[in-house]
Amino acid sequence: MKLFDGGKAPNPRRVRVFLAEKGIEVPLVPVDMGAFGHREEQVASRNPLRRLPLLELDDGTVITESVAICRYFEELQPAPALFGTGALGKALVEMWQRRMELNLMSPVAQAFRHIHPAMKEWEVPQIPEWGEANKPKAIEFLHLLDNELADREFAAGDAYSIADITGMIAIDFMKPARVQVPEELANVRRWHAALRARPSADA
Amino acid sequence: MKLFDGGKAPNPRRVRVFLAEKGIEVPLVPVDMGAFGHREEQVASRNPLRRLPLLELDDGTVITESVAICRYFEELQPAPALFGTGALGKALVEMWQRRMELNLMSPVAQAFRHIHPAMKEWEVPQIPEWGEANKPKAIEFLHLLDNELADREFAAGDAYSIADITGMIAIDFMKPARVQVPEELANVRRWHAALRARPSADA
Repeated sequence: MKLFDGGKAPNPRRVRVFLAEKGIEVPLVPVDMGAFGHREEQVASRNPLRRLPLLELDDGTVITESVAICRYFEELQPAPALFGTGALGKALVEMWQRRMELNLMSPVAQAFRHIHPAMKEWEVPQIPEWGEANKPKAIEFLHLLDNELADREFAAGDAYSIADITGMIAIDFMKPARVQVPEELANVRRWHAALRARPSADA
Repeated sequence: MKLFDGGKAPNPRRVRVFLAEKGIEVPLVPVDMGAFGHREEQVASRNPLRRLPLLELDDGTVITESVAICRYFEELQPAPALFGTGALGKALVEMWQRRMELNLMSPVAQAFRHIHPAMKEWEVPQIPEWGEANKPKAIEFLHLLDNELADREFAAGDAYSIADITGMIAIDFMKPARVQVPEELANVRRWHAALRARPSADA
């Protein structure tokens, strides 16, 4: 199998961090997204949505969507469990994964894509008013998250999970999106620093 | 356990259709979202995001996010499998579930929330230009989906799955969002009609 990778963009990074936590190595095919490599034949012929990352199995089957690729590896190699264990544990990871996506990653991405000058050719039409409207959504969620993290180590409980990966990368993505984690959110800052200190964060 | 339900809104309906397909009955607590019942104490004390649906277990544990609630029931009662079977089957359901959410449900919801006059108090600020920008995104994806459905019965393959539930409800949601399925997309129309003919569609 091979993983068509998009470098420093958030979604390709989610899969690389996940694989690093699992201790799984997959051959990478680097694609230069800055030069719109994901819109060329190599990617378009495998994913009509022309997005990365993308996993191609040896028989040619293609899996797209970061979380779907991660789930494939979770099923192949269940330990360490990054999607939770048991019915309730799996449900709570799914819940936090989605909260991180819908209330943090998504507003941060919208702010980035609709405001950053470098995104003009990516997001057509760019609507700065919509980008700005998303910044307070992200901040509001970070306050909620700070409350939740007061009495536990990770997003979904006592164990590191894919929800932490999504949360860490969303917060890292706030820098180019020019949104700041409020100073007073000590629990979010402690949590994020701990995630960044894991070797997987550099994957 | 009890399921705090939001009536005809898309996300509460996703869970009800899922439960109907599983043949699982859960006591419902109806909440009138039209009267902003989901912003009142009953919901806010259980879900700080003040959204529905929401599942409360007998010990008071709360699971939010439609797909997390569905996954909980999938784990409790695996048959019929609505999240796929086997590593590849589960990955492909996850992939199609996310494609349906990100490329169909989400743009349709954005069009509805940012254009429909009834959403003025829900989506602040309402940005009609952003709503309009989402309509062609949904239509573009429907063309891609039509291609895919040419040679299979369901979104993720030969078996009905949660990806079909999300897709069906997204297409139903196009009506209030005032977006039409293009006449020529015969495969999408055939697939949607077949899903609507299942008893679960009325749940």
